[in-house]
Amino acid sequence: MPHHKQSENALLQKIRRAFPEGASARRGDLARLRRNSLHLAIGDDAALFRPTPGHESVLTCDWFLEGTHFLRDKHPADSVGWKSLARAISDIAAMGGTPRCFLLSLALPQDATGTWLDAFLAGLRRASKRFDCVLAGGDTTRRDEILISVTVIGEIAISRALRRDGAKPGDLIYVSGRLGEAEQGLRILRKQRGAARRSDSRLRKHLYPEPRLALGSWLSANHLSNAAMDLSDGLSSDLPRLCDASGVGALLYATKLPIALDAGKDGVDLALHGGDDYELLFTIPRSSEKRIPASFQGVPLTQIGEITNTRKLVLIDLQGRRKTLRPQGWDSFVPAAFCLPR
Amino acid sequence: MPHHKQSENALLQKIRRAFPEGASARRGDLARLRRNSLHLAIGDDAALFRPTPGHESVLTCDWFLEGTHFLRDKHPADSVGWKSLARAISDIAAMGGTPRCFLLSLALPQDATGTWLDAFLAGLRRASKRFDCVLAGGDTTRRDEILISVTVIGEIAISRALRRDGAKPGDLIYVSGRLGEAEQGLRILRKQRGAARRSDSRLRKHLYPEPRLALGSWLSANHLSNAAMDLSDGLSSDLPRLCDASGVGALLYATKLPIALDAGKDGVDLALHGGDDYELLFTIPRSSEKRIPASFQGVPLTQIGEITNTRKLVLIDLQGRRKTLRPQGWDSFVPAAFCLPR
Repeated sequence: MPHHKQSENALLQKIRRAFPEGASARRGDLARLRRNSLHLAIGDDAALFRPTPGHESVLTCDWFLEGTHFLRDKHPADSVGWKSLARAISDIAAMGGTPRCFLLSLALPQDATGTWLDAFLAGLRRASKRFDCVLAGGDTTRRDEILISVTVIGEIAISRALRRDGAKPGDLIYVSGRLGEAEQGLRILRKQRGAARRSDSRLRKHLYPEPRLALGSWLSANHLSNAAMDLSDGLSSDLPRLCDASGVGALLYATKLPIALDAGKDGVDLALHGGDDYELLFTIPRSSEKRIPASFQGVPLTQIGEITNTRKLVLIDLQGRRKTLRPQGWDSFVPAAFCLPR
Repeated sequence: MPHHKQSENALLQKIRRAFPEGASARRGDLARLRRNSLHLAIGDDAALFRPTPGHESVLTCDWFLEGTHFLRDKHPADSVGWKSLARAISDIAAMGGTPRCFLLSLALPQDATGTWLDAFLAGLRRASKRFDCVLAGGDTTRRDEILISVTVIGEIAISRALRRDGAKPGDLIYVSGRLGEAEQGLRILRKQRGAARRSDSRLRKHLYPEPRLALGSWLSANHLSNAAMDLSDGLSSDLPRLCDASGVGALLYATKLPIALDAGKDGVDLALHGGDDYELLFTIPRSSEKRIPASFQGVPLTQIGEITNTRKLVLIDLQGRRKTLRPQGWDSFVPAAFCLPR
């Protein structure tokens, strides 16, 4: 039988120190937890979350696995912490919700419980503060590779959630931000030797994505959007999911895509197929066109096409030719070797 | 770039077929989902869960990893499905809560997407129906080993949760069931060649644990218990956690432990250190002793000792000698080779 009882306790202590408002939930300063409706966090069998009256809970979980979603020798540990939470929060943003708390499932090799874990927790804590989403609990275990699963619990006023299944023929299709930048960042990362330098904005977008929470909330609060989702796998993979859920098709214009500024001739391909952008894809009734500004809080909003009733996905390319749009983005359910590096 | 877009979609289709009430959330039959307060499940960015007014949400997550928590050639796939959900639900039972829905993070090798996945989903579905806890969503990816993380969302009337931190000196300590049976089951499993036979009750307890939901609810509804938790790592590991949270000590009597019926001279050790029992450990004020029956819905309830104000854990052994109780149970944060088989 194992006699290493203290190791899991030591790991929990480290996590508690990084998230003291969770650790002190049982006694003492509860102000921040209470503000996030959390009434019992790390240290009991389960966490207690008091939902806001008149709101629904928004629930999502995301894998973030060494070798599949990140490489330990390429991705800085604090980026792994930030991104593991940010990408799950992006799903909350895509629903128009507000994140409240998260659960962390963490499996670590012994040699990652020192400086790697410290930097990971620092990045995770930074994201937790930035998005006002507190650690409520989790599970830890030993493993030969780093495994992370994050569950985020958010909230939204009842019946206000942005769903995928409401797009209607004639709707205009929009995206936020510029597409393909995170893919550019991944390519930069792959060419660099050793750990990543963070001076490049495309690299930062790959390492430290910013979920579009304010935009999602604004679309939801103003009843602007018929359908929305976040772009995680790439436009050519994600748009079909929205169309499939809504029982519609789409017509996209390559000339309208907000491509990365210095992407050159790869720009359209990067915008169509690049993953990890965590921008929002949404549709609005044509009658609301004037209510969508050119940018929202500094993030460009670009009309890229329209919803059709054909159930087909068509791209008008740069030469004006009609093409069927085929998914070529990220699909994590393929052998890891095919996924990273791509 | 990967061109295997269909593989994740195919996996999701299989999961949707196994949990049709989740898949049909967007259209059609919503009765079961609505009864569980779920308003949007599999297929969108996130699930929508409508909490019951006057209730808190109870949140917990648990790893269930090949090689650490189960062995693919020993544990039947349907047991992996059942147990991955049941052990997370046990945390809800320990709080006195009622499970409502769960999220499934699943990573699979290609060779497990056929009959293994079918049997896994059948066991998961059986547990989902048994405990009335519906699949709300999740995340899938490809991996060379089977990785499972389950998050369960439950509910409890506000301020009624059973916590670990309320035990008081003089409280009587109880456990449900007989302790060490699941450990016996694991030993039987290890001795068998090939996949497990399920005729043995101890083996069934290891493979298909039953969270003590009714007991937890009863303790909570009747304000009987000062502190409670579930026994997952073994009494000698879990009791110190309850005592530490409450700032108290405990005195246990080996003669009182509800040992497995045919455990022989190993009985006390198995009861103290055996993991995976998923029974409840709880304390009550001495004045409530007469309100605790000898069994609850067929499950024995046994008084095994009392809470002290010493902050020490003392065992009176079978010979009447006082001994310090040391944790020797399961600690999953040790090298996997040390954990399974034990």
